[in-house]
Amino acid sequence: MARSGRRPGQTETREQILDAARRLFAAQGFHGATVRAIAAEAGVNSALLHHFYGTKQQLFVAAMNLPFDPAEVLPEVLAGPPDEAGARLVRMILRLWADPDGRAPFLALLRSATASEQASTMMREFLASAVLAKVAEARGVSRLRASAAAAQMMGIALLRYVLEVPPLATATEEEIVDIVAPVIQHYLTGASPRP
Amino acid sequence: MARSGRRPGQTETREQILDAARRLFAAQGFHGATVRAIAAEAGVNSALLHHFYGTKQQLFVAAMNLPFDPAEVLPEVLAGPPDEAGARLVRMILRLWADPDGRAPFLALLRSATASEQASTMMREFLASAVLAKVAEARGVSRLRASAAAAQMMGIALLRYVLEVPPLATATEEEIVDIVAPVIQHYLTGASPRP
Repeated sequence: MARSGRRPGQTETREQILDAARRLFAAQGFHGATVRAIAAEAGVNSALLHHFYGTKQQLFVAAMNLPFDPAEVLPEVLAGPPDEAGARLVRMILRLWADPDGRAPFLALLRSATASEQASTMMREFLASAVLAKVAEARGVSRLRASAAAAQMMGIALLRYVLEVPPLATATEEEIVDIVAPVIQHYLTGASPRP
Repeated sequence: MARSGRRPGQTETREQILDAARRLFAAQGFHGATVRAIAAEAGVNSALLHHFYGTKQQLFVAAMNLPFDPAEVLPEVLAGPPDEAGARLVRMILRLWADPDGRAPFLALLRSATASEQASTMMREFLASAVLAKVAEARGVSRLRASAAAAQMMGIALLRYVLEVPPLATATEEEIVDIVAPVIQHYLTGASPRP
């Protein structure tokens, strides 16, 4: 029987684009890899890539299997009542990491970034533009304060979910929120945590 | 000419002990690997191992090439004027990591801990007993607070020296002390950082 003449399906084209994106982001960093070059590498035109994945930022989120786009979610979380911004952010990150499917892509990024200079460049550029710049802008604080808050949360995730060091690994979500949210609140607003 | 009949030199014996320690700590964790088993693995008696390396904790520090024993240094740093404990700790850690030879062993531990369950167990047990317990005891705070402080400093080290994310990577030591020391002080004493 003759094979049907149809072209490679959408699913296949999408996978080709994601593969090409992973290769080029890894080789050239988040800034260095252009959408045009990724489209060329995947053998599609840029318009089709935009149609499937939107912006370069959104393409990166899809290629790395991130469970959401930090650049979309962070401003939402930070836009609510300012008094509870720290607690909302800590809860969101703890819930995300508590789910093995949620933390797997971040862990994969972290693992490759600690092992390879290229992966480190990619993660650095993405963190700076998709996370730190957004937090600093949403809260009107310096990027250094936003970075200190990010460092606090990455350290908590590392100790709780990667190294699994007690008591951080065994504490409840609310016990951690009680201790850490005032510090995140302090970084993002300048408020003093209660002693 | 006949070879001299002397036994393997001290240097060689010391290296054998460190190799055996690295193998057993990696395979059985910090708690699981006993000094007796490490001595047996190295083909020496426990008394000689103690003579060369002291306690199991000191043997671990030597085997991992750590630049100092956290269990000795942390209580000293934390024992000075309480008002400046946070600043002293932040400065000590930034200076340690600023030196490539100082950070290399910690980076090696972190890299293997994010890649292997066994290395993660080893690092977890060492962190819990050599770092968190000592900080909590020296400052009379809960281990959860000590852990949150450790998470803050590990996150700073990760962003500044591994991922090299600006502005944390480009800030001066004192700019970081200004922002982070009040938070470490808060965790270790309950004091409120100034806004």
